[in-house]
Amino acid sequence: MARRESAAAGPGSRALIVDLIRSAGPISRAELVTATGLTQPTISIIVRRLIDDGVVRETGATVSTGGKPRILLVINSHAAYGVGIHVAADAFTCVVTDTRGGTVGRQLVARPAGEKPDAAVDRLAALYRDVTGGLGLLPQSVAGLAVVGPGPVDVAQGRFLALPGLEDWAGIDLGAALAEQLGVPVLIDSDAAAATVGEFWGRQVSRERTFGCLYMNSAIGSGVVLDGALHRGAGSNAGKIGHVAVVRDGRPCHCGNRGCLEEYAAPRVLAEQARSTPGLAARLDIRPEDPAARAFDILARAAIYGDVQAHALLDASARLLAEGAVTLANLWDLDTLVLAGPGFAVAGSIYVTQIRHHLAERAYSRQIHAVQVDLSSNPRDAAAIGGAALVLQGAVAPGHGPKVAAPE
Amino acid sequence: MARRESAAAGPGSRALIVDLIRSAGPISRAELVTATGLTQPTISIIVRRLIDDGVVRETGATVSTGGKPRILLVINSHAAYGVGIHVAADAFTCVVTDTRGGTVGRQLVARPAGEKPDAAVDRLAALYRDVTGGLGLLPQSVAGLAVVGPGPVDVAQGRFLALPGLEDWAGIDLGAALAEQLGVPVLIDSDAAAATVGEFWGRQVSRERTFGCLYMNSAIGSGVVLDGALHRGAGSNAGKIGHVAVVRDGRPCHCGNRGCLEEYAAPRVLAEQARSTPGLAARLDIRPEDPAARAFDILARAAIYGDVQAHALLDASARLLAEGAVTLANLWDLDTLVLAGPGFAVAGSIYVTQIRHHLAERAYSRQIHAVQVDLSSNPRDAAAIGGAALVLQGAVAPGHGPKVAAPE
Repeated sequence: MARRESAAAGPGSRALIVDLIRSAGPISRAELVTATGLTQPTISIIVRRLIDDGVVRETGATVSTGGKPRILLVINSHAAYGVGIHVAADAFTCVVTDTRGGTVGRQLVARPAGEKPDAAVDRLAALYRDVTGGLGLLPQSVAGLAVVGPGPVDVAQGRFLALPGLEDWAGIDLGAALAEQLGVPVLIDSDAAAATVGEFWGRQVSRERTFGCLYMNSAIGSGVVLDGALHRGAGSNAGKIGHVAVVRDGRPCHCGNRGCLEEYAAPRVLAEQARSTPGLAARLDIRPEDPAARAFDILARAAIYGDVQAHALLDASARLLAEGAVTLANLWDLDTLVLAGPGFAVAGSIYVTQIRHHLAERAYSRQIHAVQVDLSSNPRDAAAIGGAALVLQGAVAPGHGPKVAAPE
Repeated sequence: MARRESAAAGPGSRALIVDLIRSAGPISRAELVTATGLTQPTISIIVRRLIDDGVVRETGATVSTGGKPRILLVINSHAAYGVGIHVAADAFTCVVTDTRGGTVGRQLVARPAGEKPDAAVDRLAALYRDVTGGLGLLPQSVAGLAVVGPGPVDVAQGRFLALPGLEDWAGIDLGAALAEQLGVPVLIDSDAAAATVGEFWGRQVSRERTFGCLYMNSAIGSGVVLDGALHRGAGSNAGKIGHVAVVRDGRPCHCGNRGCLEEYAAPRVLAEQARSTPGLAARLDIRPEDPAARAFDILARAAIYGDVQAHALLDASARLLAEGAVTLANLWDLDTLVLAGPGFAVAGSIYVTQIRHHLAERAYSRQIHAVQVDLSSNPRDAAAIGGAALVLQGAVAPGHGPKVAAPE
């Protein structure tokens, strides 16, 4: 039975066909008719446009089913390139991928503390030029740029509303500013949303799955893909698992809620806990100047190598995230959950184990089906790669991605 | 921007068109083309079939837009009737609605404690015959029967897996058994899911909304409608907000989780609390033989009329549900939340107030958009009415509803 019962036609038809060719290709036009329920003429028209646009190509191979041999279609992986830049507390990560989600370029630049927003915008533009220029990409082959980061985003307006260290960006139409400088479409989105789309797209996940992604960096977020499409909600801020209360009437959170998961389990919180645990920071050689993310990775490595105090801190965080995972599973009825984000780069194994254990014991639907829990193959770059995927979805499948600010 | 970005065509096209005529009608074929993105020929073919099936009719009215006058389409409200039976701990409620969701018949029968499953099945069949017979409905005008209740359901198999007092039903293919006795299609679903669809359908909610429903009876559940379709998840058990932990390492719940919302805030729990509060049950004339639901309603009435002890108990429950509502809002990014179910029939005002207050102060997206919170216009029958709506969706829009067990 379909997980969602209705199905809408329309601009999404092209997106649907692209996604089917991506996930089920090589596939014939006749199979697309069956899979979509669209009419033969409709399929022919859309496929013809996709071929003309260079998004899809015919393999040359055919399948014979007694009647007329059927030509098979695949995604043209070099049709376009997507660029994603992930804005973290201490660095910008830029990634370029092809239409199949393969990474063709990557660059990371540090973010000077207290940098002014305008300087940061110029730095983003320079990073984009460096990476695309270094790869010798033709401007017309770049589908666009996605800038993704934590905190509430106004996707429609292309703004970050409260980016740590760049709160002033709330006043800037970042998408339009960058589109004008770079001459490519630019979209702004949440790192968790981007990572979710990137993991779904890159793993060739079937649209039948109820696919969730738990994203951990300085903040904790999540996303869910339903029928092959990211669920955004009324204001594009769905999946805020980091702002679900895990401690009744607990610490007040900047989000307005109290006892938020993020305030007890996020890497930055564990870094503070490590520093305030007598002797621990010194023993693990966590320096005062180390950013929280680095302190957390040192702590995680120590926990994996058996440091009892470090393990106790990680374990407490992992249990909280595992409870969050049960909440996601029980509300979305997930069959797949992927862990992505820099927070899982070193500590991933500890979290995966705890989350699998919790879901197997506590998930509401466990007697009906299991929830498969996997670690991202590239937790650190997942959001940037996902940003590139969002751009490509929008480019190869208009109507499939969020609105983008087009250059003047 | 669409909240969900892809859109699938196919069997759902008919469902989509029915839903558009229902929510946006009177509407012309040309407007349907614009709204769906389906081709003119496709729309014409589907609309023709809907008219032939008696689901849709032409109003006779036309709109002139300079060119050829356009004929307007509306749902034919008497095309078919849906029957929904809600299975509660102490009673069966049967409701009959027309295709516009208007209730044309209702009957409630008590459920004798400890009734054997087979006898309960016969009782359901008898109730169906009483109500439809009493209304003089022609068998062919009845689209089918939905039996809805709490606990995990296997929608595909047509089974309740753990219905309070009827656990043995887990072994029975209830859908097939009733379909054979009654000669109509029968579907089995969760009361929360049914209520969600019923509230969405009956309120003529636009498919643009991210529509949530919080359902409270002996248990607490929820549902969400995205792009006009109920989100079911991998195993049709999404929306289990009653089994989200609100107390860390709290009481173990039958679901496998600990500290579940339901174990602290559900009416049956408050009934126990009332009975264990010295003097309260006696003062409010809550008798030992009163079922939990009745005891809860007495308690709620007392709270509304200012009984301090009663109000303290209700207020604590309302705060917990309000936290649950924030969780739903933060994970789904809801713009609408309706409260339905017998638990809100008397106590609704107390819960609505607390939930509105909490969402206004704590919802993650509150600076971007508000969450509208409404009380169902018929909290007690919401699940039964929703069951009828599920049947009608399946009937008037094949592919739109869950699988049904067809009669032999």
